[in-house]
Amino acid sequence: MKRSRAEPQLDDILRLHRGGKTRMVSRIELTSVEQLRQIYTPGVAQVSKIIEADPERLYDYTSVGDTVAVVTNGTAVLGLGDVGVRAAMPVMEGKCVILMEMVDIAAVPLLVESHDPSRIIETVAAVAATFGAILLEDIAAPVCFRVEDELKERLDVPVFHDDQHGTAVVVLAALISALKISGKKAEGLRIAINGAGAAGSAVARFLLNYGVGDVVLCDRAGAVHRGRTERMNPAKESVAEVTNKRNERGSLADVMRGKDCFIGLSAAGVVSQEMVRSMAPEPIVFAMANPVPEIWPHEAIEAGAVAAEDGRHINNALGFPGIFRGALDARAHRINEEMKTAAASALAALAPEGELVPDFMDRGVHRAVADAVAEAARQTGVARA
Amino acid sequence: MKRSRAEPQLDDILRLHRGGKTRMVSRIELTSVEQLRQIYTPGVAQVSKIIEADPERLYDYTSVGDTVAVVTNGTAVLGLGDVGVRAAMPVMEGKCVILMEMVDIAAVPLLVESHDPSRIIETVAAVAATFGAILLEDIAAPVCFRVEDELKERLDVPVFHDDQHGTAVVVLAALISALKISGKKAEGLRIAINGAGAAGSAVARFLLNYGVGDVVLCDRAGAVHRGRTERMNPAKESVAEVTNKRNERGSLADVMRGKDCFIGLSAAGVVSQEMVRSMAPEPIVFAMANPVPEIWPHEAIEAGAVAAEDGRHINNALGFPGIFRGALDARAHRINEEMKTAAASALAALAPEGELVPDFMDRGVHRAVADAVAEAARQTGVARA
Repeated sequence: MKRSRAEPQLDDILRLHRGGKTRMVSRIELTSVEQLRQIYTPGVAQVSKIIEADPERLYDYTSVGDTVAVVTNGTAVLGLGDVGVRAAMPVMEGKCVILMEMVDIAAVPLLVESHDPSRIIETVAAVAATFGAILLEDIAAPVCFRVEDELKERLDVPVFHDDQHGTAVVVLAALISALKISGKKAEGLRIAINGAGAAGSAVARFLLNYGVGDVVLCDRAGAVHRGRTERMNPAKESVAEVTNKRNERGSLADVMRGKDCFIGLSAAGVVSQEMVRSMAPEPIVFAMANPVPEIWPHEAIEAGAVAAEDGRHINNALGFPGIFRGALDARAHRINEEMKTAAASALAALAPEGELVPDFMDRGVHRAVADAVAEAARQTGVARA
Repeated sequence: MKRSRAEPQLDDILRLHRGGKTRMVSRIELTSVEQLRQIYTPGVAQVSKIIEADPERLYDYTSVGDTVAVVTNGTAVLGLGDVGVRAAMPVMEGKCVILMEMVDIAAVPLLVESHDPSRIIETVAAVAATFGAILLEDIAAPVCFRVEDELKERLDVPVFHDDQHGTAVVVLAALISALKISGKKAEGLRIAINGAGAAGSAVARFLLNYGVGDVVLCDRAGAVHRGRTERMNPAKESVAEVTNKRNERGSLADVMRGKDCFIGLSAAGVVSQEMVRSMAPEPIVFAMANPVPEIWPHEAIEAGAVAAEDGRHINNALGFPGIFRGALDARAHRINEEMKTAAASALAALAPEGELVPDFMDRGVHRAVADAVAEAARQTGVARA
């Protein structure tokens, strides 16, 4: 679990960003008027007629099937919060670069300037025919929930809020690896998650769906439990129904006591070595606050953790490229639980000895995830190719 | 006015279209995790903060300022009509290829699946922050008028319906050249236009604005005149107020009699040699119906035309690339009449001896148009760079 701690330098960063990191290009070099008449009027009319007669040919003769929209409203950008769509653009372009470079998907940033979930839904639905899938990114809760749910309902292409499900997939991958290292089983595993926003709730639901014993979510008001009144909202009410089986109350320190695993999706430094020592023997600690984790992995290991990692390795970027590649390869009309679980299992299987997750830079990893996801899509009947 | 009449072959066309003609790519080759941390989290947060503090820096550090959305709702596609957004996609990609190859603009197709002008307006307005300009394309009248008018009002980037204004610019360019050949003057020139839809109305207004004597629009019900009741709509009512000064009535044949210039934006073969012979001496004939013109240019010449051309040369593709390049270069917040006139004048000035317009394939032509447009933007106070 080695890594470089060197922080990127501003000059280098700005040089890389100058002029933008993404660019639409032509796949055809336009060299003659004859060619113009093939790719534009009058020749292109014949292609339009073919697609009008059989809309599935859209996937043969246009870029749609290999293009993903990366959509944000700029309200939950990295650790920065609601910075607006313009300030979110470099992040969206970065996400697009990852998709293009790691899995050869054409990814188009799309800034939707609105805080109103209905307006975001209507906008994305109106332009959805342009794209083979929709990646929702950095949209704050609770707007992100309604936007994703309604778009999933309305569109016949995959809609995937990466902050929720991408995070959940990579956390499950790391957990599968950590269980292998520790010899523990998912059944009966008791987990504390700090952070009860979009990511925390999605991780909790996904781990429970995978079969862990229990998950207790915490936020600044402590354990999320049924009957709590402080700092609640419909999303927390809903997740309280399926988590925290014993309806535990108390602070994060109270909740962590005796737990097998801690997952941090919250804020720098909120976990002490003392709190790790209070957990069950040989606990698993994923401290993913960015850029400074809840507790540094080496401190967690010192305090007895059998496996510890922070957000630099357990990173969404390990998950979404292969998930989208697989969904497009299978021409899936949605990304279901089985496809996400297949992605997590593939990532865990590819982790080198002693590591929880594989190397992001290994394009073979993303290819393997894509193949597992496409296979799961075909087996669960959501594939069209 | 030589050209090849060879029609493009379907096999060649489909081969060129396979997989789509456009593709979003990364400008950065992703080779290390260190680089990932510069272009994505955590490094990208510094770029976001810079843009949050000064939104103008969006143009320095993202692709926005060099990216144009090519927007359609698929309702007026080439000669095909309302084929839907999917069948329109090959045409939009073709338009993008022209922008990318001729003037190095990153152009992104955007399919807006709606017949409702309000929904189209709201959708484009919501995503407009992603783009440096909006090219509206193949949207049927009257929806196109309201969509363009309201978006121009609401957005601070150029919005340009090419079927209207691109056509008008290239027609004016050809007319300036034809006047030079014929020795006629714009003042007093009397013009008949067949086709009173979006393109016909825009051409009429633009030529009147340039200073021609009069324009009479015709459609299937004959001359558009004040007081006409058949086949009228608000757009025709409005254009009838500024055209047809003598309030002429009658058929296209009636209207063409004695006119100096005919402009066809209508249907194959509706003009006979007899009708050309009935015009004023040495008339100018632009027969732009696609793919078969109102009258073939050689037939018009035989019937006495001093200059005749069809839509293969007098083609929008001569205009919009340079217009958009110039608007982006000047970071103009709109495309005004002066910029369009500058584009037409530049095109006319570059037409080779004996031709009405220059060669589309000459990238120097598009560069010259762009420079003229950017200069006009700066002189009229709509430029920000």
